[in-house]
Amino acid sequence: MDRKDEHNTIDGIDSVETMDDMTFVLFGASGDLAKRKIYPALYNLFIEGKMPSSLSVVGLGRRKYSQEDFHSIIKESLESFSRRDVDSSHLDEFLESFRYFIFDAMEPQSYQDLKAFIEEREAEKSIPENRLFYLSVAPSLVEPITESLHKSGMTELDGWKKLIVEKPFGSDLHSARHLNQELTKVFDEEEIFRIDHYLGKPMVQNLESLIRPNPILKSLWNHEQIASVQITASETVGVGTRAGYYDKSGAIRDMVQNHLLQLVMMTALHHPEKLSAKQIEEKKTKIMEALRPIDKDDVATHVVRGQYEAGEMDAQAVVGYKDEKDVEETSNNDTYFAARLYIDNEYWKGIPFYIRTGKRMEKKSTRIIIEFKNEVQEADSQGAMSNLLIIEINPNESVGLRINLKDDGNEKFEPAYINFSKNLDQQPEAYENLLNDAMAGNSTYFAHWNEVELSWKWIQPILEAFEADELPLHGYNAGSRGPEAAEKLLNEDGFTWWEV
Amino acid sequence: MDRKDEHNTIDGIDSVETMDDMTFVLFGASGDLAKRKIYPALYNLFIEGKMPSSLSVVGLGRRKYSQEDFHSIIKESLESFSRRDVDSSHLDEFLESFRYFIFDAMEPQSYQDLKAFIEEREAEKSIPENRLFYLSVAPSLVEPITESLHKSGMTELDGWKKLIVEKPFGSDLHSARHLNQELTKVFDEEEIFRIDHYLGKPMVQNLESLIRPNPILKSLWNHEQIASVQITASETVGVGTRAGYYDKSGAIRDMVQNHLLQLVMMTALHHPEKLSAKQIEEKKTKIMEALRPIDKDDVATHVVRGQYEAGEMDAQAVVGYKDEKDVEETSNNDTYFAARLYIDNEYWKGIPFYIRTGKRMEKKSTRIIIEFKNEVQEADSQGAMSNLLIIEINPNESVGLRINLKDDGNEKFEPAYINFSKNLDQQPEAYENLLNDAMAGNSTYFAHWNEVELSWKWIQPILEAFEADELPLHGYNAGSRGPEAAEKLLNEDGFTWWEV
Repeated sequence: MDRKDEHNTIDGIDSVETMDDMTFVLFGASGDLAKRKIYPALYNLFIEGKMPSSLSVVGLGRRKYSQEDFHSIIKESLESFSRRDVDSSHLDEFLESFRYFIFDAMEPQSYQDLKAFIEEREAEKSIPENRLFYLSVAPSLVEPITESLHKSGMTELDGWKKLIVEKPFGSDLHSARHLNQELTKVFDEEEIFRIDHYLGKPMVQNLESLIRPNPILKSLWNHEQIASVQITASETVGVGTRAGYYDKSGAIRDMVQNHLLQLVMMTALHHPEKLSAKQIEEKKTKIMEALRPIDKDDVATHVVRGQYEAGEMDAQAVVGYKDEKDVEETSNNDTYFAARLYIDNEYWKGIPFYIRTGKRMEKKSTRIIIEFKNEVQEADSQGAMSNLLIIEINPNESVGLRINLKDDGNEKFEPAYINFSKNLDQQPEAYENLLNDAMAGNSTYFAHWNEVELSWKWIQPILEAFEADELPLHGYNAGSRGPEAAEKLLNEDGFTWWEV
Repeated sequence: MDRKDEHNTIDGIDSVETMDDMTFVLFGASGDLAKRKIYPALYNLFIEGKMPSSLSVVGLGRRKYSQEDFHSIIKESLESFSRRDVDSSHLDEFLESFRYFIFDAMEPQSYQDLKAFIEEREAEKSIPENRLFYLSVAPSLVEPITESLHKSGMTELDGWKKLIVEKPFGSDLHSARHLNQELTKVFDEEEIFRIDHYLGKPMVQNLESLIRPNPILKSLWNHEQIASVQITASETVGVGTRAGYYDKSGAIRDMVQNHLLQLVMMTALHHPEKLSAKQIEEKKTKIMEALRPIDKDDVATHVVRGQYEAGEMDAQAVVGYKDEKDVEETSNNDTYFAARLYIDNEYWKGIPFYIRTGKRMEKKSTRIIIEFKNEVQEADSQGAMSNLLIIEINPNESVGLRINLKDDGNEKFEPAYINFSKNLDQQPEAYENLLNDAMAGNSTYFAHWNEVELSWKWIQPILEAFEADELPLHGYNAGSRGPEAAEKLLNEDGFTWWEV
C-alpha cells in the first residue's frame, strides 16, 4: 500500500497529498523553536519513515555557522529534546539532508543567493520545485520575508509552494487582516499553514474522532444532557524572560484568541458523521460565526481579567507580575482571563462554555470538562455530584468520567473517577503531527484564516475594554486557583470550576 | 440522628427495622465459615458501631470448649481474617457478648437446655425475646434443627425471630420445595434470610444504584444500544478438598443456580427509579418469570458443559478433575458451565445474556460485561472494537469502559480501557453487609423464595439433561479459557468472550 492509498483509506482525508520530494526552507534555524521542536519532530518523522524519499532542508540564520556547526546544533537539539534516543547510524543519514545558509532577511541579495543555493540542491538531489517555507522568526519579519520571497522569484515554481507561520498572527483584528492580506498576495489560503500547536496535541486530535467510533460516548455526549463545558489552560510558570512580548500581548492574545478559541471550536464540532478536512474547516467557521458577540458594554459581565501577585509555588516565594523583570510597575496587563461564552447554534444553544487561562496558577493543566445535568432523585441526592467527562490534554493525555458509586459504608454516594491515560512516551509530539500534515498538505489541524479572523473579531471588543481599563483587574496570589471573581462568574449560573 | 432515621433517609429502604437488642444463635460456631467470615464480619460491624446496644451471641457446637477456648477461637479468627487489625481494648468489649454452648443438634434435650441458656442471658442482659438463628451447618441438618427449634418452643416469642441459612438451598427443584415447606412451617418468608454471598459484594450492591445517580450511565445503559451481556465467574482453584460435595453438585448447582442467576437478575433489574426492597424482590421475580425456559431438547443448543483435564497453573502441572482426591474415575461431573439466556421482557427482548463459570480457569474473575452495538461507519472501522461497560466484582472491584482512541500514529483506532478501581482495604466484606442487613431486617440482598424456586425451575431441565448425559462433556486444559465449544456458542451469534 503506498502512502496515498494509506492516507485515503486510513484517515479518509480527501485533501491529503502524497509526501512529495521537496525543499524545506527554515527561517530561524538557530532559534529556540527550531532546536526544541522542529529538529526533534523532523527526526522522529524520519525514523518513522514519514519523510519524502528526497529532501533538502535549508536552514537560514544570520550567524556564520559552518555545515559542521549546523549539524552539531541539530545533533545537540536531538540529544536534548528528541523523545526517541538518537541512533548514530540513522543520524548521519538524517543530517545529510540539512544545509546551513547564512542569511540576512532584510538584504535583497540574500534572497538571490538563497534562490541559487536551493536550485543547486534541487538539481543535485533531483528534487522538483516543491518548496515549503517555514517562518520561525520574529513577527515583525513575517511580512518582509514573504514579500522578498515573492520579489526574488523564489515562489514562482513548476511545483508547489507552502508557507508555515507561527503565532502570533497579528495583535488585533486590524493587524491580523493586514498581515493576511500581505501573505495572500504571495500564497493562497490553501498554501498557508498557521500553526496553533494545541491543534497538534494527540488528545485534541482525538476530539475530532472521539464520538464517532464510540457509540457509548455518542449517546452520552448529548446536548440535552450537557449542562456546561469548561475549558482550562492553566500554567504554573510566570512570565519568565518573555515580558517584552507578554506585557504587550497579555493572556488574551497569548492564549485566548488562538489556543482557547481553537479548543472551543474543536469541542463544539460535535460531528456524528465523518467529516473531510474541508468540512471540518467549514464547521469551525460556522461555530465562530455562531459565537455570541460580547459587546464592549457586556465585557464586565462575562469576562474576568486578573494579574498575579506575590505568592508561593512549591513552597517557594515568588514575586508578583509587576515585580517581574522587564514588566512596568504600573502594568495592567492580564495574566489571567476567564469568560462565559455561548454558541448560538441549534446544538449548543443555552449551554454555557466557560474558558479560563492563567499564569502562576496552582496546577499546570490543559483540559476540557463536559458537565452533565444532575437530575438525580431527591432520595438519592446524598453525595451524588454531577457527572463529568474529563479530557486532559496536557501535561497528561487522558479521557475520564466522574460517576457516583456507593461509599464504603454503602450509605451515601461518592465520586469515582474512571480514567484512561495515554502512555506519553509513545505519543508523537504536537510538532510531529503538524509538520507531517503540513508537508503532506493536510490542513485539518491548522488555524484557517476564517477562524483566525472571526476569533479576532470576537476578541476585539474585549481587547478594547481591557485597553480602556473598563473592567477591574483582579489580583490573585501566585499558586492559587485564580481570582475569586472567576469562581463567582460560574456561581452565578449554579456552576463551579472543577479542580479534578 | 438515630439508626431508624438514618436508614430511612439515607437508604430509603422502607422495610428496614431498627437494630433491636437481640440474641444471635450461631449453629456451627467452630466451623470454617464462622471463623473465616462470621466472626470477622461481626467484629467489623461492632467497630463501626453497627451492633445492637445489648447483644447476646450464643455459639453452638458439639466440641467441649470452655468459654475461654471459645474466646480464643474467635480471637484467632479475627487475627487471621479481619480486614481491620484487632484492637485489644475493643476486643474484650466485643467478646463479652459471646458465650459457647455445647450442643448436639440431634438431641432434643440440647434444645431445652439451649432455651434455658438463652433465656438466662436475656434476663441477665435485659434483652427482649428477639432471636436470630444462624444455621451455619451441613445441609442435612437444616430441616431437623428448624423442626426441633419449633418443638422446643424456642421460636414462640414475644419479640421477633429470624433464620439465616447458607447455600445450598436444595439440590433440585423438588428438594428445594420440600426444604422450603419445612422451613416455612416455623418461619415466615419474611423471617428467612437465604445467604447468597455474591449479593453481599459491594459492586453487586452498586448494580442496584449504578444508573440512578449517574445520568451518563443511564443514557449509555440503553437497551437499544446493548448488544449482549456477559457474566463470568471463573476460578483458578480446582475442586480441592470439597470433592465429596462437589462431585455430586457440579458447577451447575454450586455456581449457576444461585450466584450466576442472581447476577443475571441484578444486572437485568435496570430501574431508572428508586425501588424499595419489596419492589426489588418483585422485579427480580418478574425477571426470572421472563427468563426463557430451555427445554430438555434445547439444552445442547444453548448450554456447554465441561470438565477440566490436566494442565498448567502458574507454570505448575496440575491434575485433571478425574484424578483429584475423592473424585470417581468415571465422573462426568461438570466443572465448567456456559449458557445463552434470553429474558423475554420488553427491555431485554432479543439481547442475549451469556453466562459461564469454571474451575481451573486461566484467571480468577467475577465480572459483568455489557457489550454495546458497534455501529461504526466503514471509514472508521480500522481497529475500532465494540464499546464495553465492564463491572468487575472479584477479585478487584471496578467499573470501566472500553472505548476507541486514535493510536499513537494517529492512523488507526485502538481500544483504551478507562477504569475506576475501589480501594479494597476500605471495602466491607460481603458478610458484613449481609449480617448487618439480616440483623436489621433488610432482605434486599438475600435470595427470596420466589427467586430460588424459579431458578431451580429454570435449571431443572438442564440438570436432567446433564444427568441423562444428553450433551457432550467437553474437556479443557487446566489453566485455559475453558472448552472451545463455549467460544463457539458466542461465535454463532457474532460475539466472543472478552478477556479484559
